[in-house]
Amino acid sequence: MTQLGGHAHFLDPTKIYTPAREGKEIAYTTERVSDVARVLSRMGTAIAIRCYGDPVEWEYGGAHALLKEFARWSDIPILNMEDDIYHPFQGLADIFTVKEKFGGFKDVNFTMSWAYSPSVHKPRAVPQSAILYASMMGMNVTLAHPKGMELDPEIIAQCQEYAGTSDVGSFKISHDFEASAKDAHVFYPKAWCPEVFFKPPVGEDDLQKSQEIFDQHKDWKCTSEIMEMADKNAIYLHCLPADRGFEVTNDVIDKTSGKGWTSAVFDEAENRLHVQKAVMTLLMK
Amino acid sequence: MTQLGGHAHFLDPTKIYTPAREGKEIAYTTERVSDVARVLSRMGTAIAIRCYGDPVEWEYGGAHALLKEFARWSDIPILNMEDDIYHPFQGLADIFTVKEKFGGFKDVNFTMSWAYSPSVHKPRAVPQSAILYASMMGMNVTLAHPKGMELDPEIIAQCQEYAGTSDVGSFKISHDFEASAKDAHVFYPKAWCPEVFFKPPVGEDDLQKSQEIFDQHKDWKCTSEIMEMADKNAIYLHCLPADRGFEVTNDVIDKTSGKGWTSAVFDEAENRLHVQKAVMTLLMK
Amino acid sequence: MTQLGGHAHFLDPTKIYTPAREGKEIAYTTERVSDVARVLSRMGTAIAIRCYGDPVEWEYGGAHALLKEFARWSDIPILNMEDDIYHPFQGLADIFTVKEKFGGFKDVNFTMSWAYSPSVHKPRAVPQSAILYASMMGMNVTLAHPKGMELDPEIIAQCQEYAGTSDVGSFKISHDFEASAKDAHVFYPKAWCPEVFFKPPVGEDDLQKSQEIFDQHKDWKCTSEIMEMADKNAIYLHCLPADRGFEVTNDVIDKTSGKGWTSAVFDEAENRLHVQKAVMTLLMK
Repeated sequence: MTQLGGHAHFLDPTKIYTPAREGKEIAYTTERVSDVARVLSRMGTAIAIRCYGDPVEWEYGGAHALLKEFARWSDIPILNMEDDIYHPFQGLADIFTVKEKFGGFKDVNFTMSWAYSPSVHKPRAVPQSAILYASMMGMNVTLAHPKGMELDPEIIAQCQEYAGTSDVGSFKISHDFEASAKDAHVFYPKAWCPEVFFKPPVGEDDLQKSQEIFDQHKDWKCTSEIMEMADKNAIYLHCLPADRGFEVTNDVIDKTSGKGWTSAVFDEAENRLHVQKAVMTLLMK
Repeated sequence: MTQLGGHAHFLDPTKIYTPAREGKEIAYTTERVSDVARVLSRMGTAIAIRCYGDPVEWEYGGAHALLKEFARWSDIPILNMEDDIYHPFQGLADIFTVKEKFGGFKDVNFTMSWAYSPSVHKPRAVPQSAILYASMMGMNVTLAHPKGMELDPEIIAQCQEYAGTSDVGSFKISHDFEASAKDAHVFYPKAWCPEVFFKPPVGEDDLQKSQEIFDQHKDWKCTSEIMEMADKNAIYLHCLPADRGFEVTNDVIDKTSGKGWTSAVFDEAENRLHVQKAVMTLLMK
Repeated sequence: MTQLGGHAHFLDPTKIYTPAREGKEIAYTTERVSDVARVLSRMGTAIAIRCYGDPVEWEYGGAHALLKEFARWSDIPILNMEDDIYHPFQGLADIFTVKEKFGGFKDVNFTMSWAYSPSVHKPRAVPQSAILYASMMGMNVTLAHPKGMELDPEIIAQCQEYAGTSDVGSFKISHDFEASAKDAHVFYPKAWCPEVFFKPPVGEDDLQKSQEIFDQHKDWKCTSEIMEMADKNAIYLHCLPADRGFEVTNDVIDKTSGKGWTSAVFDEAENRLHVQKAVMTLLMK
């Protein structure tokens, strides 16, 4: 926003009356979203929101519902900086990086894989937006994860629809980490939590079971041996921050140049800035 | 400030050495107001402060004394963004909204009323500045509240003086919620704490007694039935955030258009921006 | 930064993944410095960091190592806003104030002295940069402190080297508060913690012993009687915030004008702004 000549005010939800949906209000602590959205609409030209995890108590979809409630009441654009279902700016940065590195999307093998982390507190928005956008762009998309790490079935259905209605591209699911890396042009391994980790009704609020599933799959780690299985010009992606030593080894994430496969994580990070500026320019009149 | 082409730095009192008056200092934690004010005077062109409640431990007048201490030592203007006695910007927004809606102040019946909230942690600055400014402008002012909810006697005396020295306007106190709404052009119901809630010497630091007084008056709630008693073109005001379902029902606060009485709370919120910009423009050279 | 036409984003380390060096990382909580530095290098034009004390658990040199790690990985300048060894901007402000008041550095007697505070949580960066820069500029530097309050021996060695290689200036250590004030042109008394307060291996993590050393020296307080021993045109300096009543009495710090010695603390504070702007202008292209 600064680079575009505007100014972004950071409204810390713990320092203001926390925006809350009807039924989740506490006197002197929260303010109903409909009021917050209408007041902010009188003050500025867009509202950017990032919300997932603890503030919605890991109730899957709760953060997305909050954003939709803002959009319902606001007269100005709502920018999703990551909710608990989608991370549109990251998804745009991901496909923009693919285009930058490979010139386009046709015949590009894009693998989004689960990877191990000591922390199960990992939202799903990044992988979900990544596979949605990769499918939409017509890449050959592989989603890889251990059993028990399934993503939102509605997202999967949407990916299958994109793949089915396009002349190009495909979508498949794999439970084999190494196989999913083979011949990949884009290899994007990162942790996300299993469905049981979310609160009911979607999940079971079961931290212990989640941790057990995680700990059975410590071998889902991106090493240089894994990257060697990928296409010789493959790129390693990660939205960052990465859990080094668990999701990925230092020699992979830090190989940002040289012959063969490379880590594109810093270009990817920079590209998020560019796509955010592009979207703001389009939306904010 | 941004809209005027300047920049406001937010100094979080918990991240800096907290400004403290002499006698309230703690080594390595606070900095005397006289020092903070003189240093900031070398850095910027105005200091805006919001302080009430917990940071001054509900010692009535403590926050106002802090602001006055800043004003004593600062070479640049001090802007009061709400202390524990006054909320000048809100008061200006209130009367500006009245002028916008009714064209002036003469013969306007302005009722500031107490209303119920589950939380007694409610400062008095909003109602006190509202009745002060409404009286100063020559409206017919009614202050309504249950017994035990009296406001600062010095504020009441000032309102009576404004009403008495003017050719127009009046000031009266009512203990009847419905009667105070009758024929009102402006109906402004909101919670504030009783005097006993404040620390001695002004109050008794008595949360329980405060809560008991509150709970006896849950019927002080602004409903559409109440609004129907007001003038047919009446406006409902509230500084926001409102405790929906307690201070006011949804159908009142959300009736922002249509025939008859309307809720002007979002216009009022926007007007606070305009009056703040006006005051900054006048004060900051 | 604002005054130069730019914009500074405040990245609160408790709201972002806290930058951590290798070996100090926690999944979902920290991000390795090498990643943070490289991402920020894609976003802005400089990184300013302030870090000492609790965030590095009073492990002497830990904060400085963190800054150096940032500098190793960043493509853009790192600005040191105070670490646990150095406070370069304060040191620049100090010598700039000396130049402003005395026209130069030759034959200026500069005394940096320890002073008592009820809190031992006091880093060493301010006195260390002050004596380094004063020695470098060729002043007659006296470092005064009770036994047990020695500063970093490498800093002392550097000061001695500056004094020894210059035609002008000198460096000596005193354990006598009053004697160190005598004939001083610049008297700069402030608290710092003893070496035992730091964690091993540098210190002993011994709060109680630190407090005992402090409490034996409550008489190291800058009073007007002490200032009368200094040069008749002496200035009192302090980086602020000062612990009034302990490090210094009100009548000293508040004597900002008048005949004889004066307090230059507010000029000194303003000068920090000027030197920071100068350095940013030089470094940020």
